[in-house]
Amino acid sequence: MTEPLDQPPDQPLDLPLDLDQMRARIELPDPELVAAAAARHGTLAKPVGSLGRLEDIAGFFASVQGTCPPHELERARVVVFAADHGVAAAGVSAYPTAVTAQMLAAIAAGTATVSVFARLAGATVRVEDLAVDADTPEAISTYKIRRGNGRIDRENALTPEETERAFAAGVAIVDDEVDSGTDLLITGDMGIGNTTPAAAIVAASLGLEPTAVTGRGSGIDDATYMRKIIAVRDALRRSRDHRYDPLELVGCCGGADFAAMTGFLMQAAVRRTPVLLDGLMSAAAALLARDLAYDAAEWWFASHRSPEPAHAAALESLGLTPLLDLDLRLGEGTGALAALPLIRQAIAALREVATLEEAGSQREGQR
Amino acid sequence: MTEPLDQPPDQPLDLPLDLDQMRARIELPDPELVAAAAARHGTLAKPVGSLGRLEDIAGFFASVQGTCPPHELERARVVVFAADHGVAAAGVSAYPTAVTAQMLAAIAAGTATVSVFARLAGATVRVEDLAVDADTPEAISTYKIRRGNGRIDRENALTPEETERAFAAGVAIVDDEVDSGTDLLITGDMGIGNTTPAAAIVAASLGLEPTAVTGRGSGIDDATYMRKIIAVRDALRRSRDHRYDPLELVGCCGGADFAAMTGFLMQAAVRRTPVLLDGLMSAAAALLARDLAYDAAEWWFASHRSPEPAHAAALESLGLTPLLDLDLRLGEGTGALAALPLIRQAIAALREVATLEEAGSQREGQR
Repeated sequence: MTEPLDQPPDQPLDLPLDLDQMRARIELPDPELVAAAAARHGTLAKPVGSLGRLEDIAGFFASVQGTCPPHELERARVVVFAADHGVAAAGVSAYPTAVTAQMLAAIAAGTATVSVFARLAGATVRVEDLAVDADTPEAISTYKIRRGNGRIDRENALTPEETERAFAAGVAIVDDEVDSGTDLLITGDMGIGNTTPAAAIVAASLGLEPTAVTGRGSGIDDATYMRKIIAVRDALRRSRDHRYDPLELVGCCGGADFAAMTGFLMQAAVRRTPVLLDGLMSAAAALLARDLAYDAAEWWFASHRSPEPAHAAALESLGLTPLLDLDLRLGEGTGALAALPLIRQAIAALREVATLEEAGSQREGQR
Repeated sequence: MTEPLDQPPDQPLDLPLDLDQMRARIELPDPELVAAAAARHGTLAKPVGSLGRLEDIAGFFASVQGTCPPHELERARVVVFAADHGVAAAGVSAYPTAVTAQMLAAIAAGTATVSVFARLAGATVRVEDLAVDADTPEAISTYKIRRGNGRIDRENALTPEETERAFAAGVAIVDDEVDSGTDLLITGDMGIGNTTPAAAIVAASLGLEPTAVTGRGSGIDDATYMRKIIAVRDALRRSRDHRYDPLELVGCCGGADFAAMTGFLMQAAVRRTPVLLDGLMSAAAALLARDLAYDAAEWWFASHRSPEPAHAAALESLGLTPLLDLDLRLGEGTGALAALPLIRQAIAALREVATLEEAGSQREGQR
């Protein structure tokens, strides 16, 4: 699982990282536009506040877009961060590692759940192989760091140099997307075993016990669950000296997918582009990115809460209230895509619903 | 508010009501198709159960459609039951009665929230004026029973004959829709003051106190809230002898809109057509329809829970778990339309996602 790539691809990465410069470029979304959205809602032909959380969504998009009413989302883009995890060898998942590459093929064929949901929600899907333990098509391995992350219960997931490259890959993906017109970034993930490093990251970041963060992931039985708790415990012990440095932590008990997602979330804030978080994996990366740049979290929106205990803990710490609570635990970005139509409705309501004044004159016209 | 119509329109209603015959025609959705949907979910290229509540939705639609996987929804139709309520004169609402007709004009113009949400969710909207206290266009007043329901804190909302006609109107609307190919019925409502009769119906049906069912409706202040509780209390006292007869109850403290919705919900079950319930108004009517025909509730699906306390109480009694909990309290059918895209995704997942076997061979093909 830790063999180097035969031919490391040509990665146009901005290295070495300059986190201070990134932090300095992150601004807060404009709070005046939250107020403007609320004021506009008050003029519409409906009871004040009657769209509940959907009114908050409209306010969020007004502020991150810097315009009220917010424009319709024209290019919503799921980025699936794919990687295998050496810790799968500890027997922590219900599925073998080979499934990761199979699922990437299903996404390429448009028959994965994320593909189906994206089609219905008007989004497109981009896959990036950061550390899949298989050869994948060239188109998705531009930023491949290695084959398989290290087995975190025994060794580091990444070297410091790999961590930086993975983080920079996430930054480059955001730049590429935003430069192409993407106005909503959506985090997706694919990787057998990835809830184990995610649980370890959340536990280390928030100072929680393994039993408080370890869930049933893809649906594991009791024996597998015991092994998973032990793996999280061992990874946590290894992370002891790194919990206050997000990049060290993600290299110690995360992986290239998590490091890339962390860079992605931070750079999205730099580029003033909202991110719709999906499940546990993006929430774990969000904790790391928030610890690197506190204000970045203002650019993220939580789509749903999964049954994974670490997900709820991370969202609470992030101060993000999820829109949906439907026991979704598939990953791939599917939870975020389930929330996307609601976001479109929330934006459309603020754009298109008649004002009370207009509704009154429509009635006159009909008489 | 209680004047008769100048020219009662020609209503092609099936009267007198034969509730026993309706009851006899209601069957249960096929439970074997729930099992078939679950079995098919188990073959798909995703962890078993990982779509949570969306898997239940797919099972529901398989069973009500009698086919697995369920077909895509081709004609989702909101029916907005519009009426004014004499009890508004008791000062129970934040808005004047004239707003009802204004909002119908906004719906006709396609600028109401229900219109905007329907456009995004791929549904269409039909309005039926059952008892609006104004002249409305002929196209929507086919089933108009009267101008304004009676003031329920002092008098009956309807005569027994009006109640039967309103109920039969709901039946006729379902027949018309199902005969036109509608495969998902959605309840909508529009009527200033309508949460007051809804609260009274729920309280009478479930034996609850006025304070346990009365909410802030469209957003009323404390003084209005006190008047609303008193109106609910007075209506409840008037309903004492009628609480075990749903048609008497709806005539006593409901209205033509509620009676029509009750017939609508019952006939949908007769016609084996699923109904997506919206907010408090449809939940109150659902309690009445369930009391008339217990099995009918198996054909209904709860889209969301509003902050109205009577809504939560009614859904719990109906055994329906709402999909969304977003503090929506607009009515019109908007909460149901917020849930509709999720339902489409749930159905599409069961139809379109690759099986594990297919995903494996896709990977082979890509090598």
